[in-house]
Amino acid sequence: MSLIAELREALGDTGCLTGSAIGEAVRSDASGTGRHLPKALLRPASVAEVSAALAICHRHGQPVVPQGGMTGLAGGANPGTGDVVLSLDRFAGVEEIDARGGTMTVRAGTVLETAQRAAADAGLLLPIDLGARGSCRIGGVIATNAGGLRVIRYGTTRDNVLGLEMVLADGTVLSHLNRAVKDNTGYDLRGLFIGSEGTLGVVTRAVLRLRPRPAAMETALCALPDFDAVLALLERARAGGVVSAFEAMWADYFALNERLAGASLFAETPPFVVLMEMEGALEPVLEAAFADGVVTDALLAQSEREVQAFWDVREGHAMDAALPGLLNFDVSVAAGDMEPFARDCASAVRTLRPDAFVSFFGHVGDGNLHIAVHLPDAGETEVHEVDAIVYGHVRALGGSVSAEHGIGTLKRDWLGHSRSDAELAAMRAIKAALDPAGIMNPGKVI
Amino acid sequence: MSLIAELREALGDTGCLTGSAIGEAVRSDASGTGRHLPKALLRPASVAEVSAALAICHRHGQPVVPQGGMTGLAGGANPGTGDVVLSLDRFAGVEEIDARGGTMTVRAGTVLETAQRAAADAGLLLPIDLGARGSCRIGGVIATNAGGLRVIRYGTTRDNVLGLEMVLADGTVLSHLNRAVKDNTGYDLRGLFIGSEGTLGVVTRAVLRLRPRPAAMETALCALPDFDAVLALLERARAGGVVSAFEAMWADYFALNERLAGASLFAETPPFVVLMEMEGALEPVLEAAFADGVVTDALLAQSEREVQAFWDVREGHAMDAALPGLLNFDVSVAAGDMEPFARDCASAVRTLRPDAFVSFFGHVGDGNLHIAVHLPDAGETEVHEVDAIVYGHVRALGGSVSAEHGIGTLKRDWLGHSRSDAELAAMRAIKAALDPAGIMNPGKVI
Ligand SMILES: Cc1cc2nc3c(=O)[nH]c(=O)nc-3n(C[C@H](O)[C@H](O)[C@H](O)COP(=O)(O)OP(=O)(O)OC[C@H]3O[C@@H](n4cnc5c(N)ncnc54)[C@H](O)[C@@H]3O)c2cc1C
Ligand SMILES: Cc1cc2nc3c(=O)[nH]c(=O)nc-3n(C[C@H](O)[C@H](O)[C@H](O)COP(=O)(O)OP(=O)(O)OC[C@H]3O[C@@H](n4cnc5c(N)ncnc54)[C@H](O)[C@@H]3O)c2cc1C
Repeated sequence: MSLIAELREALGDTGCLTGSAIGEAVRSDASGTGRHLPKALLRPASVAEVSAALAICHRHGQPVVPQGGMTGLAGGANPGTGDVVLSLDRFAGVEEIDARGGTMTVRAGTVLETAQRAAADAGLLLPIDLGARGSCRIGGVIATNAGGLRVIRYGTTRDNVLGLEMVLADGTVLSHLNRAVKDNTGYDLRGLFIGSEGTLGVVTRAVLRLRPRPAAMETALCALPDFDAVLALLERARAGGVVSAFEAMWADYFALNERLAGASLFAETPPFVVLMEMEGALEPVLEAAFADGVVTDALLAQSEREVQAFWDVREGHAMDAALPGLLNFDVSVAAGDMEPFARDCASAVRTLRPDAFVSFFGHVGDGNLHIAVHLPDAGETEVHEVDAIVYGHVRALGGSVSAEHGIGTLKRDWLGHSRSDAELAAMRAIKAALDPAGIMNPGKVI
Repeated sequence: MSLIAELREALGDTGCLTGSAIGEAVRSDASGTGRHLPKALLRPASVAEVSAALAICHRHGQPVVPQGGMTGLAGGANPGTGDVVLSLDRFAGVEEIDARGGTMTVRAGTVLETAQRAAADAGLLLPIDLGARGSCRIGGVIATNAGGLRVIRYGTTRDNVLGLEMVLADGTVLSHLNRAVKDNTGYDLRGLFIGSEGTLGVVTRAVLRLRPRPAAMETALCALPDFDAVLALLERARAGGVVSAFEAMWADYFALNERLAGASLFAETPPFVVLMEMEGALEPVLEAAFADGVVTDALLAQSEREVQAFWDVREGHAMDAALPGLLNFDVSVAAGDMEPFARDCASAVRTLRPDAFVSFFGHVGDGNLHIAVHLPDAGETEVHEVDAIVYGHVRALGGSVSAEHGIGTLKRDWLGHSRSDAELAAMRAIKAALDPAGIMNPGKVI
């Protein structure tokens, strides 16, 4: 039987789409870099179907590209024309919430926001949160080890996944739906699969950790005179209570997004703006910071709407829409290196292209900086030159070329800026051990 | 050249001991189950020497057993007569503390308490802490992914290691001394090596995460009427503030350790005792718990000495000394299953041996239960029968046969009670990929 006939037999007609039935959305993730329609789109509706589909592809040596919500920013989910895409959109839903134990068992096709709501309905918090919450799926979030807006308080996705079920390339189901915080039973396969971007297998289910819902949260938008003040405010906030968000914006980023949001938040654009959330105790921190000139102006959100307005500016969806082809960088450098890093990168990019828009923002509390660069009508060579500038600066500072978005295809050539040849060889050896035929998302990450 | 001659050339005479120069301590870790003296004891004094030593052993197909402080409880560091032992006691010390970034770079041979002190001297907290702090070494702590007394607040060792340097079996150095909280650059080798118990390579250095020192901590020893009250107190404490320790003791455990400590803490031994620490706000939690009968009596520590006295009872060093050959179990089950689990285990063990001492205690806030069993003059068969009882109950509840102590040799036969054949096969494939000659701590874990 042909590959497609076998897949259709295993998954049914709705589970195996080809040709024009596939739909355009599978071409590209949110990086906008994908071009191709795959050979087939598989939509298994159970773990057994995932296993059957992979076993068939394995036998045929057929490359498989897992897809979640296609909000990834590294090109990791983009297929080639010869690939088969596997989506878990039909294997979605929260299977169980254990409120006492503080865990949720969820299928990988579940949209993050759906899982967040289910936790909230049970009186608990699913702390994983990012701007793409309405589209990204648990499988994609786990496969990219997404960071997001709450890392400073609750850690990354890795820190919030207790148990994991994965299907390996040959269809073997590895199920360890552990619910305990502590579990030292052999190698941490869970941790290895988290962040492996679909190259080691397909995530099918997970046990996520839930937390008590935080008490009263207070949100402020603060104007600061310089980057030292940003770090000083972070230090004070940490000493003063529980910080649940600390998002910094450089002036260019803030000014554009404020304008696009139609808002007018400060009389003059300050050099730095910080969106800060604390569990209570925000006002005393702000007052002390005011007294010392660490903060020059601050808006304390008075309503859910104002909270949302602050976050809209920070999340910058309007900017993504207004500047198509925006280049997004997501790097880590030490806190003390951030400001000179940003200054040097910006001036190097502007030397290349004086009309470039270069702006910085990020989860500064986690050492994570995002850079949004817009080069009107840039060609591939120029994009590569900008990459070289940014990642060259990261390498010089011993930073990470991907703090949270992952490597995918877009950063594959730069992975060696953060990891040694010996490390890459070890990664390849692990990949070969678990996917000897090399069918899982080939050409991605390593 | 012979193996020993090559090793001596690479490491010098002090770096390669044989025969009576080796010393008795290398025979057995704290489980007391080791019997043999190894062929040689290697004491490399640098990463380059670790690499050279492993490359030599690899070429000779010579098994290598890494040793830290020998406080492990799973037999993981015990050698056979044909093995070579590798200790990092000569590669010790804190290399750097970055107070602003909140990180410490430390050599694997450093004793945990030394690293804790260095952090304290810099005004920060190294949150990894366990009863063996005075002897266990950072390499062993990482290789076992030790849990300990602060997991409820700061997570396990895994959550506190940002960067890691490992030497693989063939001498390849994998160095990723990352300092960022977020780093998604390919597979999480760091996470894979943490908890691998010396079977994938030798940990040489690490970047550990430091935290601000907590403000005023309050410690109380609470008497509770039943296990539901223990869980209720935990829930209240979590809702009332930041809990930094929550250690439960069943009556048998508490009574024996109270007596051995020469203390008389409560008028009558309560059914359950909880050692609770909070960052402030302890009294209101206790008062409310009193009012509802959740707590029937409580001692609030008034001095550092009283804090220490409470911990002495909980840590139970005196018990370890008084009952040689104590069998230690370290399991996870869901919080709601803990009490019936303990009851059923105890009665099954007492059916086997009516004179058995069976006692329960543990990091209940993490779902982690320790069991200490003493069978006077027990033979191997009886020990195995007790194992079968405890791990059988764990399996039935979908729990973990090792929450924190690791698998080593003592739990190797029981690993299948928590992990499937498919998972064990995946672990073996990874092991074979990174240590094809199988020289790293063979026979341990898998
Ligand atoms: C507006 C916006 C804001 C964002 N904010 C953040 C942020 O703050 N932090 C952050 O980290 N990221 C952020 N991202 C990036 C992105 O949302 C995350 O990487 C997200 O986790 C991807 O999930 P997804 O389901 O869309 O995955 P996809 O894009 O569909 O796939 C991502 C990768 O995971 C693999 N994959 C998907 N599903 C599976 C599965 N079931 N099994 C195995 N592999 C799978 C794919 O092959 C691919 O390599 C943002 C993106 C957007 C568009
Ligand atoms: C009184 C007492 C209290 C304890 N409390 C706790 C507790 O609360 N929580 C807990 O989790 N454990 C606890 N333990 C167990 C033990 O202390 C921990 O497992 C500890 O982390 C072991 O460290 P070590 O240096 O003594 O390692 P060792 O016992 O020497 O070795 C342990 C394992 O790690 C490997 N290893 C050692 N060094 C390296 C290295 N550099 N590279 C690679 N592999 C290496 C060994 O081969 C072995 O498999 C306790 C033990 C005692 C005696």
